[in-house]
Amino acid sequence: MADSLPVETPEQPLGPSKSELKKRAKALEKEKKAAEKAAKQQEIAQQQAAAEVDFAVDFYGTLPLNQSQSRPRRERAQISSLSSRDGETVLVRARVQASRAQGNKLAFLNLRQRTHSVQAVLQVTPEKVSKQMVKWAAALADESIVLVEGVVQKSPIPIQGASVSDVEIHVQKLHLISGIDGRLPFSLDDASRPDTEIETSEVQYNRVLLDTRLNNRVVDLRTQTNQAVFKLQAAIGDLFRDYLSAHGFTEIHSPKLQGAATESGASVFKVSYFKGTAFLAQSPQLAKQMAIAADFERVYEIGPVFRAEDSNTHRHLTEFIGLDLEMTIEEHYHEVMDMLDGMLMNIFNGLKEKYKHEIEVVGKQFPADEFKWREGPEGTLKLTHREAIQMLIDDGVPLGPTDDMNTENEKRLGRLVKAKYDTDYFIIDKFPMELRPFYTMPDPTDPTLSNSYDFFMRGEEILSGAQRIHEPRLLAEKMRSKGVDPESMKGYIDAFRMGCAPHGGGGIGLERVLMLFLKLNNIRRASLFPRDPKRLEP
Amino acid sequence: MADSLPVETPEQPLGPSKSELKKRAKALEKEKKAAEKAAKQQEIAQQQAAAEVDFAVDFYGTLPLNQSQSRPRRERAQISSLSSRDGETVLVRARVQASRAQGNKLAFLNLRQRTHSVQAVLQVTPEKVSKQMVKWAAALADESIVLVEGVVQKSPIPIQGASVSDVEIHVQKLHLISGIDGRLPFSLDDASRPDTEIETSEVQYNRVLLDTRLNNRVVDLRTQTNQAVFKLQAAIGDLFRDYLSAHGFTEIHSPKLQGAATESGASVFKVSYFKGTAFLAQSPQLAKQMAIAADFERVYEIGPVFRAEDSNTHRHLTEFIGLDLEMTIEEHYHEVMDMLDGMLMNIFNGLKEKYKHEIEVVGKQFPADEFKWREGPEGTLKLTHREAIQMLIDDGVPLGPTDDMNTENEKRLGRLVKAKYDTDYFIIDKFPMELRPFYTMPDPTDPTLSNSYDFFMRGEEILSGAQRIHEPRLLAEKMRSKGVDPESMKGYIDAFRMGCAPHGGGGIGLERVLMLFLKLNNIRRASLFPRDPKRLEP
Repeated sequence: MADSLPVETPEQPLGPSKSELKKRAKALEKEKKAAEKAAKQQEIAQQQAAAEVDFAVDFYGTLPLNQSQSRPRRERAQISSLSSRDGETVLVRARVQASRAQGNKLAFLNLRQRTHSVQAVLQVTPEKVSKQMVKWAAALADESIVLVEGVVQKSPIPIQGASVSDVEIHVQKLHLISGIDGRLPFSLDDASRPDTEIETSEVQYNRVLLDTRLNNRVVDLRTQTNQAVFKLQAAIGDLFRDYLSAHGFTEIHSPKLQGAATESGASVFKVSYFKGTAFLAQSPQLAKQMAIAADFERVYEIGPVFRAEDSNTHRHLTEFIGLDLEMTIEEHYHEVMDMLDGMLMNIFNGLKEKYKHEIEVVGKQFPADEFKWREGPEGTLKLTHREAIQMLIDDGVPLGPTDDMNTENEKRLGRLVKAKYDTDYFIIDKFPMELRPFYTMPDPTDPTLSNSYDFFMRGEEILSGAQRIHEPRLLAEKMRSKGVDPESMKGYIDAFRMGCAPHGGGGIGLERVLMLFLKLNNIRRASLFPRDPKRLEP
Repeated sequence: MADSLPVETPEQPLGPSKSELKKRAKALEKEKKAAEKAAKQQEIAQQQAAAEVDFAVDFYGTLPLNQSQSRPRRERAQISSLSSRDGETVLVRARVQASRAQGNKLAFLNLRQRTHSVQAVLQVTPEKVSKQMVKWAAALADESIVLVEGVVQKSPIPIQGASVSDVEIHVQKLHLISGIDGRLPFSLDDASRPDTEIETSEVQYNRVLLDTRLNNRVVDLRTQTNQAVFKLQAAIGDLFRDYLSAHGFTEIHSPKLQGAATESGASVFKVSYFKGTAFLAQSPQLAKQMAIAADFERVYEIGPVFRAEDSNTHRHLTEFIGLDLEMTIEEHYHEVMDMLDGMLMNIFNGLKEKYKHEIEVVGKQFPADEFKWREGPEGTLKLTHREAIQMLIDDGVPLGPTDDMNTENEKRLGRLVKAKYDTDYFIIDKFPMELRPFYTMPDPTDPTLSNSYDFFMRGEEILSGAQRIHEPRLLAEKMRSKGVDPESMKGYIDAFRMGCAPHGGGGIGLERVLMLFLKLNNIRRASLFPRDPKRLEP
């Protein structure tokens, strides 16, 4: 309607505001300083290039290209260990996070290794540290890799901006191992800043957009935040495996190249396979069930799964890591649900207990309320699908009892559950049969329901699973009812015709668990080199 | 030449020999018995179908389909634990490996769980075990899954053909959980027999060909041999990870979908990617190096790699599991070589110490001389490429000093090394530069050589690795010299332009290590569902 068009308001000022001008002036000043530093660097680099530099002789300079010329076996120190090495002479390879001069006799380097940093000091000292060396050090490009030799000394006051704040390195030798050839796409400081700081600060900071980060992922991954994120990603895999190994599971590796496009009709990628066609597995579902029919009893797999869905949401990737498991059932599919629940709680507890440092590091850039789950005798909250829908209906959402929940309603349910039960983690059991794939076992008493469940973190689904149909005739019948031709999946059905124990399982998306535990808000941040419909690089 | 053509010999008999006839008669007899058994089964199945069977009431029969009706939480016993449970009543779910009657009052079942088996006895006993039950049990189809309740009793004599030979189960209740719908493609006994036995026996056994096995992989995987093979496959992965975790490595997951066909021109699979094209990664080489440029320091990955090479050899698959690692170098690339060596010896030792049972099980079907490696102060045998070539030249092979070794020469070298040094495991270092990919670091003193190595088991290559070029200009130069346009791999080179530590690594093929350790002779036996140019199913 015409009257809803935006109208120019007279309140709009005609030029930039006073604070805006102040911000711009600061930004200009910053840019000027950076340009000066770059010029200085270049000048010194030219001086350097003229000199032949050898590690054993010179106090500073560029090391010759390491082609494995010799192996003196001198220990390199970890920055994280320096607090306990006061007085020792150490050799440290590290990134230069920042360098600056103070007068012409003193230079400071902020040295970084992964999630740890320390301050290094160069002070002009007769026969040890020359003026030239101090000048050269102060002009080192950010993100250079250096080899430093120096003495660890207690610092009289805590050092700001270094994770190891009680000691510093008094540098005696300094060598450049790898320099920067070109211009960094963004500074690590800019890439490490939380959004809240950018929004509230007086200074006009550069906001590094997600796309810029991903285009330059190698630099982006160097932030302490990302170093911690991917340590936590690896930790989730380890905790998953440790729990399952302790419970008698065997790891399997199933092929990603498939002869037929299988499962519930979801989009699969097509591969040119010599003179024919293959398809990329959209889950190890069929293979892990066949492993059960082959008597493996309990199996898990960690591997890539591929989804050719053209959706660019915050929580979808075209390739992600599936943590999948499948196990035989003795009496009831809740054996599987309990196993999955135990496994997830082992992950949550393991992260909390063993990766406190990494969680804190990430929290500085991505502030999040601590992830909550229920422990003890009451255990994990389990709702039936019907109960979950009822909570939404009671909250005013117009839904029928067998309706699917969309993303918005899932999040809403997450908030309702959090308010009522104070947990970020819960299970919904007994989904309507019509919402689940053909291989799902129906409920024994109500054929409209199924023996299936989803697990949720912060109102988003992270795991889907069920008891599967192990009886080949029932399986074929269900396939037909869902419009799948049993003949098209003969190898799969045949596996059950040769005898198969009752079984069930589930699959987690590794990146989703990581994203939701840390509240990273976009799944791309939880993937090393993410793939989506628009991104295949780097 | 004409005189070398084969000539029909008059020694050739005109009809089948006497022993041949005897073999045929035995085979006929066997087939007749199987047919009789099948007929009996069917008859009994019809009787069964007429009756309503309920687990809680009847002593034998088919359990209703397990749809998770109830959860009484009764423990299921592992067959491997039964020796220590003499006198106890146990509930066991197992496969029927074989069943037979003795008279009409006694039946024997050979029950199997993975690599373990036990004998179960049914004896007609008033009010406990009926004649009908014994008859039904004796006619159970091979590979049925049953639930047995009975008392564990010491056996007066060791039981032949059962891995648990000191006890047997005296059955009181017996239920069929999952039957066989159709005919087994081959018997598990046939599939478990070593080739040597088939060749030397009087009886004409069925030889189950590899293709038949792979077409019916789910049944084939049930042999005790295969159960052990894939426990050992999982064990290798665990030992790889444990060693690397203990040495500060982080697990990464790199994308298999790539925007460009990369690396040294080897064939890659093409994928339809929405409106464009993607390629399947033929190794995580580029990604793991980029992780090093991103300060991950030490990384490993376990994941599928894809090779679109149309070769159907005993040691090539189009999809296999790569165990890859990459690490920074402080002084010399032998730091990496030593790490890889330590990791492999950890695998060998771990298998020998912790998986004796599984290795023995496999050895029954695939007899192999025990895998040998050197321990202690002398350590792993390391030859330079030049020395290795010289050993072959000394043995009469016409080779030049920078020639590549073909598969035959590699095997020959393996035999020469075994004879001279008594080891099945060794390293060849310092390959000629021209034989290695563009990213390989040249030797510091001889530019025709490189800082690269291959590792061998039983004369076959299992690992290839090197120090990589971390200096972007040298890298671009080497790319051009190998005919690769640096612009086509801009993202990769850019990673090094932003500063990168010296580094190196290597990659193992999981299936190769498994095949060669156990001497399985064909890599398909070491892959759960193998993929080659002719096989995409099951």
